[in-house]
Amino acid sequence: MTRFSLHARLERDTLLVGDLPLCRVLLLNDSRFPWVLLVPRQAGLVEIHELNAADRYRLADETALVSRVLQSIVQLQKINTGALGNMVQQLHIHVVARHTGDAAWPGPVWGAGAAVAYSDTESQRLVDALRTQLSIS
Amino acid sequence: MTRFSLHARLERDTLLVGDLPLCRVLLLNDSRFPWVLLVPRQAGLVEIHELNAADRYRLADETALVSRVLQSIVQLQKINTGALGNMVQQLHIHVVARHTGDAAWPGPVWGAGAAVAYSDTESQRLVDALRTQLSIS
Repeated sequence: MTRFSLHARLERDTLLVGDLPLCRVLLLNDSRFPWVLLVPRQAGLVEIHELNAADRYRLADETALVSRVLQSIVQLQKINTGALGNMVQQLHIHVVARHTGDAAWPGPVWGAGAAVAYSDTESQRLVDALRTQLSIS
Repeated sequence: MTRFSLHARLERDTLLVGDLPLCRVLLLNDSRFPWVLLVPRQAGLVEIHELNAADRYRLADETALVSRVLQSIVQLQKINTGALGNMVQQLHIHVVARHTGDAAWPGPVWGAGAAVAYSDTESQRLVDALRTQLSIS
């Protein structure tokens, strides 16, 4: 059995928050949008419906948890969630805090121009807030 | 308590497939992509995490079911799912069959040009196939 390892592109484009029971939690390094990725730690997954029912429910819970945490730590108008995977096949779920003043509103964040990296201070502040609210040590 | 009614824009842009236990199932009238919408039949919903846990799991099951059904009735490379709601607030979940030759590949379908309506024959064929596979009479 192959062991889970994070896709190189996901690793390169994100900052590590930590692990929930099912998913690795990552912060996309794009200061234009508070944008979390959830990656179920199972090798070879591509589609959500490949998860068994228990893990599908865990994914629903972890997605809802991250959505609520984003609502509590940043100003947002709407949560956008999605699982696309047209470019990076490894299953990953986007949870994005959207605001009427953001760089892509009201369009989708996917395909909306180039990422703008956080400063170290900004990203550390967000990662810390996510860890605290998600009880990840 | 307000009763559920489908948002006028969702009604206008789709064809009715029918009802699963939680969601109204709609086919988006865009022949460029086999594209289903799932709308939980509860008034006032905006975000997935507003559903209680049982309904969140039902939504996860119905989304997985529709994904598998799309895989069985159309040629596809990847399922794209998403809940955005930046323009139409009523909670609706997109389940889209993507193909390497489609009009937006590998970009997202959201914001990708104008819909191309089905012919009556085409849409009826797809709606019938969805009803049969979803056991909706």
